[in-house]
Amino acid sequence: MRINIGVSNRHVHLTQDDFNLLFGDDQELEVNRYLTQPGEFASNSFVTLKTDKSSMENVRVLGPLRSYTQIEIAKTDAYKLGINPPVRESGDIVGSEGITIIGPKGQIEKTEGCIIASRHIHVTSEDAKKHGFDEQKKYLVKIGGIKGGVMSNVSVKISDNYTFEMHVDTDDANAHFIGKNNNIGEIIGEDNESI
Amino acid sequence: MRINIGVSNRHVHLTQDDFNLLFGDDQELEVNRYLTQPGEFASNSFVTLKTDKSSMENVRVLGPLRSYTQIEIAKTDAYKLGINPPVRESGDIVGSEGITIIGPKGQIEKTEGCIIASRHIHVTSEDAKKHGFDEQKKYLVKIGGIKGGVMSNVSVKISDNYTFEMHVDTDDANAHFIGKNNNIGEIIGEDNESI
Repeated sequence: MRINIGVSNRHVHLTQDDFNLLFGDDQELEVNRYLTQPGEFASNSFVTLKTDKSSMENVRVLGPLRSYTQIEIAKTDAYKLGINPPVRESGDIVGSEGITIIGPKGQIEKTEGCIIASRHIHVTSEDAKKHGFDEQKKYLVKIGGIKGGVMSNVSVKISDNYTFEMHVDTDDANAHFIGKNNNIGEIIGEDNESI
Repeated sequence: MRINIGVSNRHVHLTQDDFNLLFGDDQELEVNRYLTQPGEFASNSFVTLKTDKSSMENVRVLGPLRSYTQIEIAKTDAYKLGINPPVRESGDIVGSEGITIIGPKGQIEKTEGCIIASRHIHVTSEDAKKHGFDEQKKYLVKIGGIKGGVMSNVSVKISDNYTFEMHVDTDDANAHFIGKNNNIGEIIGEDNESI
């Protein structure tokens, strides 16, 4: 089964409280452009991520605001920042890596919240029923091209509202040359080894 | 068949002439440490890579000097530099990407020589005979772990002097979490699709 692949650059999700601390009580998170998943958007707000070793500027805040603050980076970013975030599903942040977020009006030392997002596929409830996708299972996705391969350990997230799409981070994208001209993968089966 | 994997960070190979232009006629390329392949070494010399868009400092020169100058970077580096090097075997540089190399004593505008090195396995002539490895074929290498998978299109290089080892760039390494604690792959067969 063919699937479109979207690439997630490093980004931040914020709670209302953390947004207010970083950008001010009088600010609102503005839409820059809507993303593929319904309601999700790239905002016009940016933060700096800081660690003892280094920092990264111009990290975009994605909207809408959430019930948890989460910082999603790639392993390449983690090396630069000198930290070791775990691979996690979105929202599973307990015990994950800490990092400091700096905004124009303040900064917050998060003791957890920084993760490397797992490779995942957004599936509609209808498609999940039709094709037998299961959130408890992992899948294999094949990529073509000169730096192609098969990504294992790909999770699925099922919701009525989703658009059928796979998300990978910039390391997976750059290793496999996934981009505008190579953004189709093939779900070739369940990954029974990685469960 | 299990294989050790080494990670190649961006680096430069130089001709004697280019070395002299960049570092001076009175300089020699000094060994910092020897690499796994016999005779190959990381030197104490560094250059800056420059393009119209950006530059990268502290790019290490590998030795010994060669009959061609070659700049090996990853796709992540290529995005930062705003260039589009092809995936090539080492030494196959005709028509590859141009880049400027800056040293302490001079700079050189290379019109070609910048590549993304293909994933490749160094094989001794003995092992090649024994296991039937063929430089005209491509292979599949499986990586374990939470961001594991299978890398396709892996070439082999055969020589009496080689040590049996796979080389990948930092994008492949970071995407698959290949590093000190995860540096063993498994050659699972020929890649008949990628030829």
